[in-house]
Amino acid sequence: MNEYSADILVTNGVVLQMDADSTRIENGAVAIAKDKILGVGPAAEFSTVAASRVIDARGGIIMPGLVNTHTHAAMTCFRGLADDLPLMQWLNEHIFPAESKLDENKVYRGSLLACAEMIRSGTTCFCDMYLFEDAVARAAKKAGIRAVVGEVLYDFPSPNYGELEQGFAYTKQLIAKWQDDPLITIAVEPHSPYLCAPELLKRASILARDHRIPMVIHLSETQNEVAGMIEKYGRTPIGFLAEQEVLAPNLLACHCVVLTDEDISLLRQFDVKVSHNPESNMKLASGVAPVPELLRQGICVGLGTDGCASNNNLDLFLEMGTAAKLHKVNTTDPTVMDAATVLRMATIEGARALGIDHITGSLEPGKAADVIIIDTRKPHLTPMYNPISHMVYAARGSDVSTVIINGEVVLAEEKYLSLDLEKVMTDVKQIADEIRRG
Amino acid sequence: MNEYSADILVTNGVVLQMDADSTRIENGAVAIAKDKILGVGPAAEFSTVAASRVIDARGGIIMPGLVNTHTHAAMTCFRGLADDLPLMQWLNEHIFPAESKLDENKVYRGSLLACAEMIRSGTTCFCDMYLFEDAVARAAKKAGIRAVVGEVLYDFPSPNYGELEQGFAYTKQLIAKWQDDPLITIAVEPHSPYLCAPELLKRASILARDHRIPMVIHLSETQNEVAGMIEKYGRTPIGFLAEQEVLAPNLLACHCVVLTDEDISLLRQFDVKVSHNPESNMKLASGVAPVPELLRQGICVGLGTDGCASNNNLDLFLEMGTAAKLHKVNTTDPTVMDAATVLRMATIEGARALGIDHITGSLEPGKAADVIIIDTRKPHLTPMYNPISHMVYAARGSDVSTVIINGEVVLAEEKYLSLDLEKVMTDVKQIADEIRRG
Repeated sequence: MNEYSADILVTNGVVLQMDADSTRIENGAVAIAKDKILGVGPAAEFSTVAASRVIDARGGIIMPGLVNTHTHAAMTCFRGLADDLPLMQWLNEHIFPAESKLDENKVYRGSLLACAEMIRSGTTCFCDMYLFEDAVARAAKKAGIRAVVGEVLYDFPSPNYGELEQGFAYTKQLIAKWQDDPLITIAVEPHSPYLCAPELLKRASILARDHRIPMVIHLSETQNEVAGMIEKYGRTPIGFLAEQEVLAPNLLACHCVVLTDEDISLLRQFDVKVSHNPESNMKLASGVAPVPELLRQGICVGLGTDGCASNNNLDLFLEMGTAAKLHKVNTTDPTVMDAATVLRMATIEGARALGIDHITGSLEPGKAADVIIIDTRKPHLTPMYNPISHMVYAARGSDVSTVIINGEVVLAEEKYLSLDLEKVMTDVKQIADEIRRG
Repeated sequence: MNEYSADILVTNGVVLQMDADSTRIENGAVAIAKDKILGVGPAAEFSTVAASRVIDARGGIIMPGLVNTHTHAAMTCFRGLADDLPLMQWLNEHIFPAESKLDENKVYRGSLLACAEMIRSGTTCFCDMYLFEDAVARAAKKAGIRAVVGEVLYDFPSPNYGELEQGFAYTKQLIAKWQDDPLITIAVEPHSPYLCAPELLKRASILARDHRIPMVIHLSETQNEVAGMIEKYGRTPIGFLAEQEVLAPNLLACHCVVLTDEDISLLRQFDVKVSHNPESNMKLASGVAPVPELLRQGICVGLGTDGCASNNNLDLFLEMGTAAKLHKVNTTDPTVMDAATVLRMATIEGARALGIDHITGSLEPGKAADVIIIDTRKPHLTPMYNPISHMVYAARGSDVSTVIINGEVVLAEEKYLSLDLEKVMTDVKQIADEIRRG
């Protein structure tokens, strides 16, 4: 390791590589050249590496950035607008009216705030589904965060693209525009089986398959949804998607709360990926996804926050703690969802769920340099017997001090380098003022 | 309000008084003289108050400090020592062996770390049950935090006081030593009905009643406990305590996870207070306490973190978020445990549970000045439609910038004034090293 030079050397921390062996290096370092990880190993082996910039983790934790597999970034504009309401009242009286005021510029500004929040809390990659997704991609690009984005498609006219035909055209434009981008991946994103006719779903699936990109969908989130699908089609949402030949390894199914045994078999059989959003499912009283069973069957499950109108933050550290604890009480088994499993869900498994585990999700030479440092010199992280336990059960997003994405330092000692935080916050406050005025 | 002078004026923030009317003042101020709140009102009315020190909340939230109704402070020493294990294996192979190494000095140092963590995350009062509780009281006093402390009593010899007779003697010494202290309240704390013979429980109850102080007990935490009590005594733990004439308004029952309808009736009938510890109950897979039903019946419920071996932090902001969301999913009703209710549980109701709501838990003239400021100039707290929603669903303990307890500023702009944090953390790291060596 002595012979090469690096652009950045992150050193003097406990390295959690999140590779196949979950390698942990007590005093380790990560060398970065341009946008890639060059090497990972004991700090001593890197002591003579010539690095343009050395970042001292000061005994903290060095790990891959977290991957948020499901959010609606621009919903930061509605954070705390309404809570504690029945789902349909919340949607019809608060969220839908507020959403009707959105335009491309507001989505850009709301997404930029979401990117700021995610970066600050250690998320280096997110998967988004919303309107005006070109604005989301531009916001992610501006913030320097990795993103999988796709325009939501459904049977009725959209405030963005009007009729569905234009929705597909818009998606194709996104694919063309962003195809060579190092940070942005475009996905095809039909909203859900209950808002998308069979033809839409099939067409979306073919488009995603032809471009070898992910397809993202809300699936089996609530009892009502499942009951409605059974009434309409005689099948569960997943059974229905199987019938439509839409289940595939590039499909990311968000929520998967209400599942039959046959649903789970289908997910496994077709290697469908699952995004688990426990805090949103709790807050909306949707139910508890059978994640321990999905994992037992070898299904890939990543973590997501969902939009922050139903969470109400985008802090994946808190989501990890909730995921680990919720399933213990739900199954009355304190051994399920152990910390190591949950930390993999929030990193490498999340990347796998998005089809980009060859790029991010672990610290391995040749992968993109998506690296975070957690400052453990805090009372609530003292003492430290087990860094993995701390990441899941004790840490908060605010413990992240440094964030590197694709080789660029975007947060250093808690300061943003890619964003003017004051302006980002002021812009969304103005949007909130408009929404308040009604 | 113009005529008087104050020692401290906290101003320029949204004041959440947490009084009977849950008064909210958009741009408010709190005036403090010595250890007491002198006045609360619109900032404009306080503009001419002569104050020795003015603390600018910078548009953040000014509210009473949070009340943690159940913890074992010194268990910071075991934070993350072992997780994800069956309860008896966790206790017998990890926690009990580590606890056997504790002494008064280690309890002092572990408690000091807990105080540091609680202060940093906005808790200004905690209720503790553990060994060597004089050390806990001294640590709280040193840190400047309000505390209700009591030595744990049970049927077998304790590492602190040996035989039970000395346990009662030790408790009486605590009562005598701390009786005039402005911060410390002593409680009588029998561990639980399953570790305490009827005579111990009765005697403890009489001691508490005679001194008009709280009695604190673990109660109906697990299915196993309840089954064991029914087998041994033919009654549920609460039914058994009723038989022993131990149920009373000064009794704080911690956990109350496994309750029958009759148990709930008894709690209501005797005005027993309940400490709800959702994160610990989830992590240990104990179950979900029927808190919405307790509240419907008018039973006073406060929030607690439990010891941080089963949590693993002491952050009551996170506990609020978990409490609000857990009961929604558990009852499939998104309207239960609304943010305002949960915030009251973490403040005034917690104080009431500890019998000190005449002293703390709300911002009202004449009460002790236990005040915190939450810095809302953060991406995850932007925009702010509803400060109460933010406190429960979006904030983290790390958003607390300033903490005043009994009129003393103990945390200012995130810096400790009562503690040498580096030393506090180093001391507990040394204890952890000893525990690691086994």
